[in-house]
This record gives sequence, C-alpha cells and structure tokens, in this order.
Amino acid sequence: MKTISTAKSHGGTQGVYAHASETCGCDMTFAVFVPPQAKDGPCPVLWYLSGLTCTHANVMDKGEYRRMAAELGLIVVCPDTSPRGESVPDEKDDWQFGSGAGFYVDATEAPFATNYRMYSYIVDELPKLIAAHFPADMTRQSIFGHSMGGHGALTIALKNPDRFASCSAFAPIVHPSTADWSSKAFERYLGPDEADWRSYDACLLIEDGHRFDAFLVDQGKADGFLQDGLRPWLLEEACRKAGIPLTLRMQDGYDHSYFFISTFMDDHLRWHAARLGTGGGDVE
Amino acid sequence: MKTISTAKSHGGTQGVYAHASETCGCDMTFAVFVPPQAKDGPCPVLWYLSGLTCTHANVMDKGEYRRMAAELGLIVVCPDTSPRGESVPDEKDDWQFGSGAGFYVDATEAPFATNYRMYSYIVDELPKLIAAHFPADMTRQSIFGHSMGGHGALTIALKNPDRFASCSAFAPIVHPSTADWSSKAFERYLGPDEADWRSYDACLLIEDGHRFDAFLVDQGKADGFLQDGLRPWLLEEACRKAGIPLTLRMQDGYDHSYFFISTFMDDHLRWHAARLGTGGGDVE
Repeated sequence: MKTISTAKSHGGTQGVYAHASETCGCDMTFAVFVPPQAKDGPCPVLWYLSGLTCTHANVMDKGEYRRMAAELGLIVVCPDTSPRGESVPDEKDDWQFGSGAGFYVDATEAPFATNYRMYSYIVDELPKLIAAHFPADMTRQSIFGHSMGGHGALTIALKNPDRFASCSAFAPIVHPSTADWSSKAFERYLGPDEADWRSYDACLLIEDGHRFDAFLVDQGKADGFLQDGLRPWLLEEACRKAGIPLTLRMQDGYDHSYFFISTFMDDHLRWHAARLGTGGGDVE
Repeated sequence: MKTISTAKSHGGTQGVYAHASETCGCDMTFAVFVPPQAKDGPCPVLWYLSGLTCTHANVMDKGEYRRMAAELGLIVVCPDTSPRGESVPDEKDDWQFGSGAGFYVDATEAPFATNYRMYSYIVDELPKLIAAHFPADMTRQSIFGHSMGGHGALTIALKNPDRFASCSAFAPIVHPSTADWSSKAFERYLGPDEADWRSYDACLLIEDGHRFDAFLVDQGKADGFLQDGLRPWLLEEACRKAGIPLTLRMQDGYDHSYFFISTFMDDHLRWHAARLGTGGGDVE
C-alpha cells in the first residue's frame, strides 16, 4: 500500500492511498479518514460507496463527513467506483458503464470479468487491507452510499448481514435490474440471463429471502433521477412485505447532488454510530 | 445577472450566478448561499475571498460553511479571484499571476489595468448586485478569506472599517509587498514604485494608520507556505504596535488546504455571527 497524501482535518487524518489490487487487476485508489479517537485504540469502520462517475475524491471533497466522524470516533473508508487504467476495458463516452460505473458486481462476461470485480474488491480484498494498515475495529462495521453506491451498500449489507451493524443510503438505485441506467450495464457485466442479476438487486435479494435489521434512506423529491432510476417506493414495498424496518425520508426540494448528501450526512453518521455503539442517535 | 445553478442545501439555497462586470470588463461568476432564515427577512452578508488558483467553486465545494451558516442565518458570498476570459490578459503558466491571482488590487499597469480591478469589483460592483438580487441586509456585513483571500479580507476591512462588523482569515498573506509569491505580482499590477503597494498590504496599512476592531486568524503550523509566504507573526507585531486585538491561533499539524479551512470554518462563522448580532460566539 502506498500513501498518496495525508492531511490533518478535524483533529483526525484524511488520507488517500493506492495499492495493486489482485481482485481488479489494476492499481486502485481509496480514501480513509481516521478520527482522533484512534490514538486510544481501534475505531469502528464506516464504508461509503460512491455513485456513477465518482472516484474516492468526490465524497472526500464534498461529503462533509469529517466533523461528525471525528466527534463520533468513526473511521470512514471511501473506495473508488470501478477499476481504472490503460489495461482496463472501458467505454469513455458512456458514463453509465465502465470506468466510474462498476455497479459493485463481479462481472462474468468478457472482456469485463477480468477487472470489473468490485463486489469482491469491497467485500474481500479492501477490508483485509484496511485491517492490516489502519487502527480499525473490524468487528464493528457499517456501510452506506449514494445512488449507485446506495445500491452497493444495500446489496452488500443484505448479502453480509452479520458483518454490518447498520446500512443506510442517499438516493439509492434500489432495483437496478429494471432501472434505465443500470439494466444495460448489468446485461454487459453479467450476461443476458436476468436470473444472474438477482443477487445484485436489493429488491430482488429481499424477495429471495435476504434480510437486514433496518435501513435508513434519504431521497430528495427534486431529484431528476427519481422516477426512472431510483424509485425508492419499490424498496419500501419490498421491505414492507419482508418485515424489514425502513426509515424512508422524502426530502422536499433536494436534488441528487452533494448539496443534498452533505445536508443529511450528520444524520446518517449518527444513525450508524448508534448501532456501532459509539454515540450518535436515531433520526427524526 | 444570470442564474447558472441552484440547489437546496441545509434548508437554504446554494446558487451560482454570472453577470457582465463593468469593473472587470468580462463576465464574472460567483456563488451565494442564502440561509433558510431569509424567508423571514433580510440576512447579514458574509464575504469569503478565496486564494490563488481558486474560483468561486473551491470553497463552495470544500469549505463546509453551509451547515453553520444555515444555523446562524448568514448569507455567504463567494466571488471569483480574478477576471477571466479570452479578452483578459493572462499568463497560463504562472499560477501566481493573472487568472486566479487577482490579489484584490486595482491594477494600474498595462495591459492589466483594464480588467484586473478586483478591489473595486469586490468593494463596489458586486455589493450593489448582491443588494439588488438577494435578501441581504447590507447594513450588516463581515468578511473573511483564505491565503490570498485572507490578504484580500484584511486589506478590504482595514480600508472600509465602517462597512464590516468583523474580519477573519485562514492562513492569510499578511505582508504581500515582501512575500515571495506576491511581490512580483504587485510589481506587474501596480508598477515598480513600492509606495503604491502600501494600500494593498495589511501590515503596511496598519503602519500607515488604518485600524479595525479586531481580527481572528487561524494558521496551520504544518503549512508549507508559512515561512516565506504567510508569516503571521508580522501581522501580530503590527497589531501589537497599533493596539488592534488579534486572536492568532497557530494550529498544530494543519496544512494550507481545505481540510484545514473546513476544520475551523464553524469557529469563524460563529465569530462573525456574534459580531453581526445573529448568534454565534467567541473562539477558544
């Protein structure tokens, strides 16, 4: 692992790191915030998965998570959203596929199966690296994300319910198999058989019996992607049928941007902290 | 004035706007955050001046001012740092001169005198536009900034002490006439006679009799520009001689970045709010 940069912020350290990823077959970059409490012992780990077109840097720059994470004693890990590099197949003109659009799946179709393995990267490889190099209490982990990263957080939590104390999302893609910006990507990453897509779709995972303690979702009512891409009411219906408690807050006037995410960041951090046993509290 | 974008954030509105500036002879862009309290009447205005290489966008994205500004009911105005455009003379290879490096002076030397008039732009033209288009209480204004923008805030406050209730800065250039990154720019904007530079130099303005109620300055001890560019001890000495109260906080481990600025943003907003009569309080 190579340190790209570190800076003191809110009493902790915001770092950017890179490593040669075996899973993705390329160098991968990620950001980690270590709070001041880490001086006194390992801290719980909160994973933030970003949306389409983002790298680790977008939420690091615009997410406004450090003040509250420093107050609550949370390590925040912000991975990239896809493999990248000259050796990685990409389609530069398509922002919904390839670089910046890994969709947190393990691709099975050529030529993408070699590198586009973001599910295994987030679930297996990167946690080992975090455990080895940071003052992280890996027995206490939570996960959240935005848009495509909200999809990632929900599906990874549903498939690994014993690992994560809590899961939340900002404007998540809840049913990617049928959403206009993800179904085409799923077909190219996973092949034409829609049965193979089910294990990467939050609504279908719940339909297939996967469960999680509770979800928190914030969704802006002025989000331009609400009707065709996001459709949180589908998650609401799936959770209702399955008996999964879902706190879905439809927020008046908010769009899909970091101006929305940063507004509700404190609430999400406090929600996770309460479930990680490090302060925080419930949302209104 | 043209609206480029608006987004709801922290209950208020973060907007980006552009207009044809008569002072600068080009189109100018700026950002304004209007807090939710503006629904009930005009709010005080806090000016944030940015540093070298920045536009209005850097602090809007990374400054983390909206949560506290929304709590305190402050309008925050973030101008650009120089004139820009094809018709504006520039030196693309020099980040310390030209675009992004207006130094908040009115240039007197050709070919810069036509466009590089950031002092008059910030002090005269833009306030009129803000007063005309936003729910701003122009009888209550304060000013702060970072680095070159800290220099801008200090000098503009010293030259207009009756307009501003308070002034603060993050890592300001306090004595630009002799700092390595500004003295060359001053010569090219203002000519070789150093007597003409004095009215744009905080330390020299104080030496020449200008006064202000009090300053708050935060400075990171790990700032790479501390010794040659910033030198806050020169401001400390000037303020001591002149009897101007200065709260100078040397912050252990912090660098020159927005990770530093955002850490102490809340303190500065509360300092200004206390002096604008809208809540807040003093710093420790």
